[in-house]
Amino acid sequence: MQNHPFEKMAGLSSPNDSKIILMVLDGLGGLPTKPRGSTELETALTPNFDTLAKEGVTGLHLPVGAGITPGSGPGHLGVFGYDPLAFQVGRGALAAAGVGFEMESGDVAVRGNFCTLDEEGRVQDRRAGRIDTKTNNRLCEKLDPIELDGVELFVQTIKEHRFLAVLRGEGLSDEVNDTDPQETGRKPIDPEAQKSGAGKTAAALKQFAECARKVLAEESPANGILLRGVAKKPEWPSFRDVFGLNAAAAAAYPMYRGVARLLGMEVLPQPETFEEEVEQVKEHFSAYDFFFIHFKPSDSRGEDGDFQAKVDAIQKADAIIPALRNLAPDVLIVTGDHSTPALLKSHSWHPVPTVLWSPTCRTDRTESFGERECMSGGLGPRFPATDLMPLALAHAGRLKKFGA
Amino acid sequence: MQNHPFEKMAGLSSPNDSKIILMVLDGLGGLPTKPRGSTELETALTPNFDTLAKEGVTGLHLPVGAGITPGSGPGHLGVFGYDPLAFQVGRGALAAAGVGFEMESGDVAVRGNFCTLDEEGRVQDRRAGRIDTKTNNRLCEKLDPIELDGVELFVQTIKEHRFLAVLRGEGLSDEVNDTDPQETGRKPIDPEAQKSGAGKTAAALKQFAECARKVLAEESPANGILLRGVAKKPEWPSFRDVFGLNAAAAAAYPMYRGVARLLGMEVLPQPETFEEEVEQVKEHFSAYDFFFIHFKPSDSRGEDGDFQAKVDAIQKADAIIPALRNLAPDVLIVTGDHSTPALLKSHSWHPVPTVLWSPTCRTDRTESFGERECMSGGLGPRFPATDLMPLALAHAGRLKKFGA
Repeated sequence: MQNHPFEKMAGLSSPNDSKIILMVLDGLGGLPTKPRGSTELETALTPNFDTLAKEGVTGLHLPVGAGITPGSGPGHLGVFGYDPLAFQVGRGALAAAGVGFEMESGDVAVRGNFCTLDEEGRVQDRRAGRIDTKTNNRLCEKLDPIELDGVELFVQTIKEHRFLAVLRGEGLSDEVNDTDPQETGRKPIDPEAQKSGAGKTAAALKQFAECARKVLAEESPANGILLRGVAKKPEWPSFRDVFGLNAAAAAAYPMYRGVARLLGMEVLPQPETFEEEVEQVKEHFSAYDFFFIHFKPSDSRGEDGDFQAKVDAIQKADAIIPALRNLAPDVLIVTGDHSTPALLKSHSWHPVPTVLWSPTCRTDRTESFGERECMSGGLGPRFPATDLMPLALAHAGRLKKFGA
Repeated sequence: MQNHPFEKMAGLSSPNDSKIILMVLDGLGGLPTKPRGSTELETALTPNFDTLAKEGVTGLHLPVGAGITPGSGPGHLGVFGYDPLAFQVGRGALAAAGVGFEMESGDVAVRGNFCTLDEEGRVQDRRAGRIDTKTNNRLCEKLDPIELDGVELFVQTIKEHRFLAVLRGEGLSDEVNDTDPQETGRKPIDPEAQKSGAGKTAAALKQFAECARKVLAEESPANGILLRGVAKKPEWPSFRDVFGLNAAAAAAYPMYRGVARLLGMEVLPQPETFEEEVEQVKEHFSAYDFFFIHFKPSDSRGEDGDFQAKVDAIQKADAIIPALRNLAPDVLIVTGDHSTPALLKSHSWHPVPTVLWSPTCRTDRTESFGERECMSGGLGPRFPATDLMPLALAHAGRLKKFGA
């Protein structure tokens, strides 16, 4: 608990029966396609977001720091109040959390990809033609029974070509390299100990890869595996301990369910659609203090480079706001985990539009929800993402006075 | 590498063939001469800076921190991404770098002033009437052959009354006080060890000062010396190691050449004029990734207290922008190292106008390049100077995503 927001808030938490809703529009921030043009959010017709912006306080948050483009994990950790530089998690542990695998202390998790190997054992396709999830299920049933020397193995489907492998046993380590060569035409890299004490883990993963190749020999196109992000379960202070909040997550995608689970949030049953997520929040509104709702399409359409489709996605998210306001939350925040401008077809480092609505807001001069309006909002054009949670708690009346 | 921007960027650097130009207008920031009046930059006609401001993103940077007036060294280190509080350099080492003296590890450098002493040995003029550089040359030739016990001595002209002295030998220390009494009517202070282990260095500098007085006894007005800023060469991570950039500096003044050299930038041959600096950038544009161009007159005219002359200087700098834009850089930054308001005739603590231009900018509402316009720019009215380099790298596509 050495880092900034936690340190400041230690001992200030003062639970009450207020409700906070945090709606994350993945990849919300955008760019104009020409200088002085409008971004996706500025182009979208968002009457409900605009009302929040008029009544609340706006700004743009910096997810990690100047110039840093965050992955989805760090982006979410920041808005959840966990400094992404202090709380780093390996891909394996994030994958385990995402599919709801209960890692035990000492377990080591790895993200696996099914891949296609040629006759010399070189990687032909790092994703085995993105096989479907049903095929993945069948293949994982072949991998799961593999017996390793002195180590228990669990293999579980994630989605398409992605699976999770977990090792359980004494003396395991996360100091083992990835086996993915990151390009085709090369053989998978052997797992090796990066530090003393990691030999047992490296040997187990090597044995796993060899056995997998035998078991998958007759399969096509998925006749091999690549392993990435060997990781232990992070031992982090829980959302409840840090903020005194009983939190629930409504999210359809494994990644975001995983991050929420790592912080000890209750992850609501897997929804199929965004509308279903909102229904879940309604249904459980009396049972929790804090709700995280995740909306994926704004990021996906940005990654596609489809400006108009991202505009449409944002409009769809806007339409859900009246349903959330009808629940009469004490604090409602709409923001993103990072920017995904259609112009760049990828995550970016640009600050992320944010509106915080609450009856205790000091209204600023923002007239609508958009990047340029937020630049002159009360939260400033580049505030740290980790400021959001302390602000939410304060507006919810959940923080005591500091000092006499 | 413990401090902020480097820590964040460790491992994110991803070189490509993009080009970044950083143009530093020394002392750019100004003040109005009456409340609500215009600053020097706001008064100047700067059509080219204004276009950059319209198409790019603006703000004002804080060189060191609130209320801190930086010297030229810290001011430049900040915009180069090196936290000026973490990277402090003694005057002697900066002087050595400035004149291109290659310090070896263990050397100790001192900035010297020729001064005028009266018959009792009291300082009459701390700068010996600012003797010309030619006289300085002649006097340094008299000082350089002085032999010190167990220590090798190098003496070299800087400019006017300023010279460099370097001691080379075993067991030297930088923990010796300045001899400059900082006022007239007092005798030079004896060099003394400030810590155990500095005795040899103190003795050598004392012997140097005594010998110099004998050698210069018949000279007028420069019949003595004052020594300041005893310093070893700083061992800093290079610009290339930190940012992955192959950098070139086009700067006419020794001080700025020195700072660039301390960071391992290639310092282009001594230009005579600013126009020549720009020619150098053109000529070497294919050979480097990053160009630092230094423009001095905005600071000098501010120090003179000549508002209109500073306005003219800024206009002269503006006229050079089309030549730089013709080179088609991926990122072009125009800023200063600190403010030098003509009103104050000195450096000041006021934030420094900054424009960052790149095709991946999120355009803000800035209409022209001036202090008040920059206050509502997308970079904010007081962003840390050390944010500029990570932003430049991000816009140049040179930073990988952080985390999964």
